Amino acid sequence: MKTYKIALIKGDGIGPEIIDEAVKVLDAVASCCDIEFSYEEALMGGCAYDITGDPLPQETINISLNSDAVLFGAIGGQKWDNLPREKRPESGLLRFRKELGVYANLRPAVVYDELVNASSLKPEIVKGVDLMVVRELIGGIYFGEPKGRDENRGWNTMVYTREEIVRIAHQAFKIAMTRSKRVCSVDKANVLDVSQLWRDVVTEVAEEYPEVELSHMYVDNAAMQLIRDPKQFDVMLTGNIFGDILSDEASMLSGSIGLLPSASVGAKIGVYEPIHGSAPDIAGQGIANPIATISSASMMLRYALGENDAADKIDAAIKRALKEGYRTKDLAQFDAKEVCSTSEMGSIIANYA
Amino acid sequence: MKTYKIALIKGDGIGPEIIDEAVKVLDAVASCCDIEFSYEEALMGGCAYDITGDPLPQETINISLNSDAVLFGAIGGQKWDNLPREKRPESGLLRFRKELGVYANLRPAVVYDELVNASSLKPEIVKGVDLMVVRELIGGIYFGEPKGRDENRGWNTMVYTREEIVRIAHQAFKIAMTRSKRVCSVDKANVLDVSQLWRDVVTEVAEEYPEVELSHMYVDNAAMQLIRDPKQFDVMLTGNIFGDILSDEASMLSGSIGLLPSASVGAKIGVYEPIHGSAPDIAGQGIANPIATISSASMMLRYALGENDAADKIDAAIKRALKEGYRTKDLAQFDAKEVCSTSEMGSIIANYA
Ligand SMILES: CC(C)[C@H](C(=O)O)[C@@H](O)C(=O)O
Ligand SMILES: CC(C)[C@H](C(=O)O)[C@@H](O)C(=O)O
Repeated sequence: MKTYKIALIKGDGIGPEIIDEAVKVLDAVASCCDIEFSYEEALMGGCAYDITGDPLPQETINISLNSDAVLFGAIGGQKWDNLPREKRPESGLLRFRKELGVYANLRPAVVYDELVNASSLKPEIVKGVDLMVVRELIGGIYFGEPKGRDENRGWNTMVYTREEIVRIAHQAFKIAMTRSKRVCSVDKANVLDVSQLWRDVVTEVAEEYPEVELSHMYVDNAAMQLIRDPKQFDVMLTGNIFGDILSDEASMLSGSIGLLPSASVGAKIGVYEPIHGSAPDIAGQGIANPIATISSASMMLRYALGENDAADKIDAAIKRALKEGYRTKDLAQFDAKEVCSTSEMGSIIANYA
Repeated sequence: MKTYKIALIKGDGIGPEIIDEAVKVLDAVASCCDIEFSYEEALMGGCAYDITGDPLPQETINISLNSDAVLFGAIGGQKWDNLPREKRPESGLLRFRKELGVYANLRPAVVYDELVNASSLKPEIVKGVDLMVVRELIGGIYFGEPKGRDENRGWNTMVYTREEIVRIAHQAFKIAMTRSKRVCSVDKANVLDVSQLWRDVVTEVAEEYPEVELSHMYVDNAAMQLIRDPKQFDVMLTGNIFGDILSDEASMLSGSIGLLPSASVGAKIGVYEPIHGSAPDIAGQGIANPIATISSASMMLRYALGENDAADKIDAAIKRALKEGYRTKDLAQFDAKEVCSTSEMGSIIANYA
């Protein structure tokens, strides 16, 4: 029996509730897949600041680096919004990504057939959508120097090196090889110098993947095409801030941001987390949708641990729960047979897994 | 009788066809509103490069500065994509905006009741949408220094000064005063220093408009909310690149990018243009939708010339044409009674105006 060490970073707001459900489901598949998990909790975000004065204590980095994978909830909340920048939960998260070196953020946007009516887009537009945003995560304008502000001026630098573009491009092409073999690289090369380099380098890397069809699209057009005809996309490759914007937009195709998982990879240890935030307004009420986090746990099994059977079981269990009409509050209007709480949804999926 | 001098920049692709229809409609309202237009054509974009070697000849700037307003078609096309950067059509456009000093780009996204089925979003989501994106147009990462690239590195600078933020914020608040009195300022202040300054300065300017309700939203969330519930927005105030992305996204709410106008203002002379591009693939076929350009001419009458009656006439004529079921090809599937060509649509609207 294999034992995996999982670092659990529950975080703030609804973070603890949703991580608890993912753990419930992981333990359920463990027993039938002959694997075992040992969990170690670590602090990050506002709760870490409250206890240690630092949104990312060194111990959290140590625990993470010493695990097989990190399962992450969500961080942040108004309570900490007025702290000095480097003490804010978001700063902890950005530093965490950088310290781990997880440069590739994979954000699938998949529309479940059972929820095809839940989107604000027409069912015929979203039915069958299955795309993957591959977002560069530890470069670009999020980290570029110089940056700063004074009373009269604020500045940030969007910078990419060839090396940074090469490695994220390889990730995108490799993923495309396991899918429909199409990569659409999104930039603003008609205006930005950094995007011109991006486009040139992505085009070069593409030569190593002759089976993959590469196209380029300007980011403004991509924001439009994602709504006009999302099925045209397979893999969307893009930089840090464009990926931040486009992946959030893409998440709405699915009907609820409470559904979609993500994986941050490219280094020894990967981070698996829902794409939604900590939603302090609904924390502690038992109404958060745990599916994005449970689905992130499935990505962890697949990408970090190679436990594809266990991942398949979770994915099938989520689909079955939705098919049978179980819905958390965010999706209660859409073909619900039974509206259930966060922990009821977790138990149903664990049961089916 | 008043005579207005209008600079016409037809540009590339479908530019000439759509400008011709707008002129037709302008002349139709002129005769009944006791005004007159004298037009002077000027070159910009690929066609200007082909003739003069410069995508923005000095004469074009002179003609524009010597007019009462500029009516602009569209520029660009693959043909010129491999020219050196400063010769490309887009460079001419950016330089033009900067030379004129039009720092405020107003992009209304309005959904016509008659076309409520044309959107890829559900009718109940888009019916009644009436929002205005106020985009800063001559600053931010589009123009910030340092910028450049070599073989191994590319960089651009997103920079705003207090003064630049103050003047665009005033535009947004003033427009909000004529509308529902709500401004949502969009930034990425949880990550970018320049956005923190943006947020602080916008908040300061808001104090001068106590009747206007100000909110702040992160750009990733805004990209999501625009699809989830677009009716929550009245005026969206944002920087150059975020505005580029969000206004294109918002345009899809209307069902066709061929419908939406824009105004670039803030200086002595304003520029009025459709938000769509030059669409070289359909140029010369007589199938382009001229409504965005005709609607831009209406904005010109209203904002540049103060001819509100004439503008009202055009807006009513567009609505009537749509109501009676006239549709260009882009909208032919949506409750069309008659599919018409670019120039037929222009004539119908001119006739009703
Ligand atoms: C919280 C914030 C810093 C973060 C980001 O912008 O990367 C979030 O929006 C995300 O996408 O994970
Ligand atoms: C053509 C391009 C330079 C331009 C821009 O990005 O501003 C266009 O997308 C627009 O929005 O007017």
